[in-house]
Amino acid sequence: MIARVPVAADRGAVHDALVQCRAFNEVEIGVGLEMFDAGVAGDYELAGLEEGGLLRAYACFGKASLTERSWYLYWICVHPAAQGRGFGRALQRHVERVVAQAGGERLVLETSGRDDYARSRRFYEQAGFTLHGRIRDFYKPGDDCLIYCKELSACP
Amino acid sequence: MIARVPVAADRGAVHDALVQCRAFNEVEIGVGLEMFDAGVAGDYELAGLEEGGLLRAYACFGKASLTERSWYLYWICVHPAAQGRGFGRALQRHVERVVAQAGGERLVLETSGRDDYARSRRFYEQAGFTLHGRIRDFYKPGDDCLIYCKELSACP
Repeated sequence: MIARVPVAADRGAVHDALVQCRAFNEVEIGVGLEMFDAGVAGDYELAGLEEGGLLRAYACFGKASLTERSWYLYWICVHPAAQGRGFGRALQRHVERVVAQAGGERLVLETSGRDDYARSRRFYEQAGFTLHGRIRDFYKPGDDCLIYCKELSACP
Repeated sequence: MIARVPVAADRGAVHDALVQCRAFNEVEIGVGLEMFDAGVAGDYELAGLEEGGLLRAYACFGKASLTERSWYLYWICVHPAAQGRGFGRALQRHVERVVAQAGGERLVLETSGRDDYARSRRFYEQAGFTLHGRIRDFYKPGDDCLIYCKELSACP
């Protein structure tokens, strides 16, 4: 796997990853693509991992406005063809390095409290993110928003 | 006071309110104006209260993407000439009505944990917002982000 910044030509691979990973519904795929486009346009930071010339995982992140050193991790997606082989973990660590190098001291993310997101939550918890808040029924009834944060100074 | 949707011509009054209320630094004033401009362009909702033909208080809010019925209150500002006379409370209630009429069921906001924001936090707590999360040092060292939420179905 090779880390590189995704470009406009990766849009098809990003769309494919968003659809094939089966974690997102149609509206979420649309928002994911919008954020990718905004990232290519410079509104957000993008990071990706490719294999065999294909982008197989990407993340969308950015500095939180009005903060000195806090960043958001908005989106992370791994194509199923690359799942289970450390792409997600490598990408998360890569993003943390990029953020830390840019002066970021913490990474904040929001994810769902739904049962089918248990694996995602474990992924972030094992990476050192801790739960800092919960908004009940935020996404829809029974679908809470969980707010996680990781202090990057505590990185290994 | 008269409730109305702010328009581009109110930009001067908004700038004046942001500066005169002395709650915001230069960067925050810039972001506040950017969000006002984006609101006028249709990216966010705006609500305001005028008195004597002048916009004296305004709020910037909007539906949270990927949610069914959750909204964010991004910004609320009252010109000092109108402070202490119920403009803030009237505007907060007006925003809640607008959101509820649009199908919103909860309003989420983030504010600072700094001592000089104690009055703002009391304002929101008295309005029925409750604390749902805290990210330490989010804005800067010693300046936490507090996440509040109010269920609008519980409105009086």
